[in-house]
Amino acid sequence: MLTLERVYQAAFVLDKVARNTDIVPARKLTDKCELFLKTENLQHTGSFKLRGAYYKISNLTDEEKAKGVVACSAGNHAQGVAFAAQKNGIKATIFLPSIAPISKVEATKKYGADVRLIDGIYDDAYTAAVKFQEETGAVFIHPFNDPDVIAGQGTIGLEIMNQLKDVEAVIVPIGGGGLASGIGYVIKKLNPDCKVYGVQATGACSMSVSFTKSELTEINTVSTFADGIAVKKPGELTFDMCTEYLDDVVTVSDDEIATTILKLMEDQKLVAEGAGAVGVAAVLFDKLPIEGKKVCAVVSGGNIDVNILSRVISRGLLTEGRQTTIDIELHDKPGQLRDVADLVASCGANVVGVRYDPGGENTDIRECKLRISMETRNKEHLCEIKEAFIKKGYRICDV
Amino acid sequence: MLTLERVYQAAFVLDKVARNTDIVPARKLTDKCELFLKTENLQHTGSFKLRGAYYKISNLTDEEKAKGVVACSAGNHAQGVAFAAQKNGIKATIFLPSIAPISKVEATKKYGADVRLIDGIYDDAYTAAVKFQEETGAVFIHPFNDPDVIAGQGTIGLEIMNQLKDVEAVIVPIGGGGLASGIGYVIKKLNPDCKVYGVQATGACSMSVSFTKSELTEINTVSTFADGIAVKKPGELTFDMCTEYLDDVVTVSDDEIATTILKLMEDQKLVAEGAGAVGVAAVLFDKLPIEGKKVCAVVSGGNIDVNILSRVISRGLLTEGRQTTIDIELHDKPGQLRDVADLVASCGANVVGVRYDPGGENTDIRECKLRISMETRNKEHLCEIKEAFIKKGYRICDV
Repeated sequence: MLTLERVYQAAFVLDKVARNTDIVPARKLTDKCELFLKTENLQHTGSFKLRGAYYKISNLTDEEKAKGVVACSAGNHAQGVAFAAQKNGIKATIFLPSIAPISKVEATKKYGADVRLIDGIYDDAYTAAVKFQEETGAVFIHPFNDPDVIAGQGTIGLEIMNQLKDVEAVIVPIGGGGLASGIGYVIKKLNPDCKVYGVQATGACSMSVSFTKSELTEINTVSTFADGIAVKKPGELTFDMCTEYLDDVVTVSDDEIATTILKLMEDQKLVAEGAGAVGVAAVLFDKLPIEGKKVCAVVSGGNIDVNILSRVISRGLLTEGRQTTIDIELHDKPGQLRDVADLVASCGANVVGVRYDPGGENTDIRECKLRISMETRNKEHLCEIKEAFIKKGYRICDV
Repeated sequence: MLTLERVYQAAFVLDKVARNTDIVPARKLTDKCELFLKTENLQHTGSFKLRGAYYKISNLTDEEKAKGVVACSAGNHAQGVAFAAQKNGIKATIFLPSIAPISKVEATKKYGADVRLIDGIYDDAYTAAVKFQEETGAVFIHPFNDPDVIAGQGTIGLEIMNQLKDVEAVIVPIGGGGLASGIGYVIKKLNPDCKVYGVQATGACSMSVSFTKSELTEINTVSTFADGIAVKKPGELTFDMCTEYLDDVVTVSDDEIATTILKLMEDQKLVAEGAGAVGVAAVLFDKLPIEGKKVCAVVSGGNIDVNILSRVISRGLLTEGRQTTIDIELHDKPGQLRDVADLVASCGANVVGVRYDPGGENTDIRECKLRISMETRNKEHLCEIKEAFIKKGYRICDV
């Protein structure tokens, strides 16, 4: 059973190893509420996960410690356990699916863990980890459904209450529900008036469905780029605690998450992963009744693959009209490319790509198609450019 | 004249408006020294500039305040002055060259400044600002060559000495030298044993040249994407102070800055602009004698245009072999594309772009060229893929 005493004990134990991460104001993100961010993406290992893992490990007996720990994860929990084991001076064996991003595999190895890559998906790695546990007697560190793990994550709740004493609502990402259980428990025990909300990705909404139905529910498929919270089924303990201590659980779409990641980079200079951004996304896309309130959103992690980040930026730039690709139909005669280049330059757009092809079957046989990619200032600027083309008699279409 | 008293007074005045930004450990970035980052990119307005501007403005007489302030800047100083004027409840008129990025123009307007866009480059905007100052009697806020401005930036030095008491070296980006003058002065007054280093971009090295020559020197051209430190000539005051209080001034290339920006995002989850990253770049690329020391690098700002950031990521991914484009020569017969796609898939690379063109004048008339863009794990992975192609008899070349 979780008690405040246990969370305070976890805080004492964690004082040596976890960062008391900063809370930063996020005025540029919204003026609908007074928003603050608890920056657990700036935690060691790039996420909050080491808190629960470290406290859990520190509570093992000497005999258990001698046998080491085992975990299965494709991401943040792997690094958290590896880091915590290293700090405790014990052996960690971490099973990862072979499809895990190389960056996460390398990071886990860096913390000294014995990393085992298992062909297949997460479930295959999990099976292998359980087998290893049975054979060696190593202690299995569950990513969320464990009172010690939850107590460790709950220390974030203590820090928030200390850093932002008059906070009126706290928003927490949910995958399996360990973070939300810990923070929800602490906040409600210390100040029952403070609202606590959980947020999931629409494509991985097991806790949201379970919360609404008041019944532990497994969903068939998960589909979100927020891999840190792509969980099919909440834990029994975390389901019970979220039901008791959260005021609501809402969801945000992958597009909303992507836009939020871009905004966090531009306005707050913070890199968040999909799972880390869902709480802020719920604020920006008006999913919660928090207008005018003092709000703290937990940015739980920042371990996003740079390839994905690059795509998130591209998507965001397209959405905001700051990068665009258009097709222009041209008559196949000299001087056309020069005329177009001239027009684009005079509009102040920056050309980043050009492609010039003969027309396909739907165009006049004398026509060519020019595909041009540009950096533009915003949607209005983009419209101006299109109008300038139309005025000169060109036929254009978006790609 | 600058005194410690004046810096302490600035710190008192700034306590209400500036964030005492966090210092974060950067263990993942390097193990050659014990590196910490002073995160002024997480300051309000996204850079340290508001410190100097606010302290300067708060020292104006009522009569001066009534006439308002004027500044000329294409970036961080504009936002700093606008923010500081708004907080002091006075009018700010900011001249910007019309080529300034829309994001910085919009941000400056958001802080309530009267923004005047001037056709041409920075010098044209500066001329217009001086004319405005003469006509209206508004107080000109210089971006660096002013004792009050320097005192304001110096408060960062006080914070570092308080947050990291046994720091042995502090590394500071240099454009005009205001930040380095303030921090250098404070550090050397409080602990003369602590080294203080300045860092510039190779393409904008006016202070570095001046420091080496011991003579205030203007350089003819500046060329760096670190626009926040693209300054042709140091100030007289900042030159004198940097000469007196800095141990050395070194430079880093634009490629080194770009790689550092990517590493700061991946390993530290922080967005830095070019100017903000040069100090860390000097550490990562071994420009300074700091091995084994406790080091603090000031990340001075994070206002980087997202279009540029997107290119920085692409460049970094290319450099690290994590994204690549290769040309493959194919005989123009059925099944070739399938065979190539099959080979790429079996190597575990992710195709993100394909282009299929007839050969040019240097290829066999029966051959086609397939250009294929892929996400790969690292350079070794890329080599494996190339070898697999060569083994099957394909001719390939990098793009």
